[in-house]
Amino acid sequence: MRRSTGILFVTCLLIVAVSTMVVGQTQTATPADTGAIFPKGQRAPAVNFTGTVWVQQLIEPDSAFNIPVGYVTFEPGARSHWHSHAGGQVLLAMGGIGYYQEKGKPIRVLRKGDSVKCPPNVPHWHGASPTAGFRQVAITPNTATGRVNWLLPVTDREYNSLTR
Amino acid sequence: MRRSTGILFVTCLLIVAVSTMVVGQTQTATPADTGAIFPKGQRAPAVNFTGTVWVQQLIEPDSAFNIPVGYVTFEPGARSHWHSHAGGQVLLAMGGIGYYQEKGKPIRVLRKGDSVKCPPNVPHWHGASPTAGFRQVAITPNTATGRVNWLLPVTDREYNSLTR
Repeated sequence: MRRSTGILFVTCLLIVAVSTMVVGQTQTATPADTGAIFPKGQRAPAVNFTGTVWVQQLIEPDSAFNIPVGYVTFEPGARSHWHSHAGGQVLLAMGGIGYYQEKGKPIRVLRKGDSVKCPPNVPHWHGASPTAGFRQVAITPNTATGRVNWLLPVTDREYNSLTR
Repeated sequence: MRRSTGILFVTCLLIVAVSTMVVGQTQTATPADTGAIFPKGQRAPAVNFTGTVWVQQLIEPDSAFNIPVGYVTFEPGARSHWHSHAGGQVLLAMGGIGYYQEKGKPIRVLRKGDSVKCPPNVPHWHGASPTAGFRQVAITPNTATGRVNWLLPVTDREYNSLTR
């Protein structure tokens, strides 16, 4: 009887493990939340970013549309350098946990569904949190007045100011 | 001993049930693939749409940003009326199966990750397939020249032209 109790217990543990794995796999198979609405694209130029960043151009500007639209994936800890846009920029948070900071203000944490208006000519940076990546759509209007003006890298002290 | 075996069995069943529920809830809380990156928002005005359509404004235009950005959810069979934009419009397909048609051209089927440039002043419509809904981000640049010019409803004959 003691032996059958042991077998029953092990069987139950196996059922727990398998049922958890099956449901867990279904969750893993939902790719949208891992950023798969758009492809990751190409590595962003290291000269303007810290860490690993990917950029997929969704809309190329042309004579009818002066708004490049890009999809940006920041791996954990990655961020842009400080920069500004003469025409401003709109960000749509698609997933993960992001950081956004305008010069002189505290870091704002971004989560899926959040949107941001970066005002024209205001120095700012955006990136991922230290432990979770971040995915965003970036819309850059009014490019006739200039697309981006790159500034200094975000220091570790600046980046970590949220958690100090 | 038999009683303790019964208690152990019931306990194991409870563990299975609870662990499945917990992991299942985590999965349910991953709404991205069901279109929940952004909230559905409000019902779109019936005067400009056929069927059930929801609109959530993500970016309101202001003096610095002349680009309203909206998130539109079409339930199966729903579509906009024919219309045009003086400044054109950009669509980003976020999920489901969508239809997009410019006047005089065949319907184009849109899937997650597709993007569309609707040229300025070209009559077009967009909506969901008959059996699957559709979710899109709509970016309307150059609103200084006018936002939207509504035209006639899309007839059933036009809507079903893809499958005839």
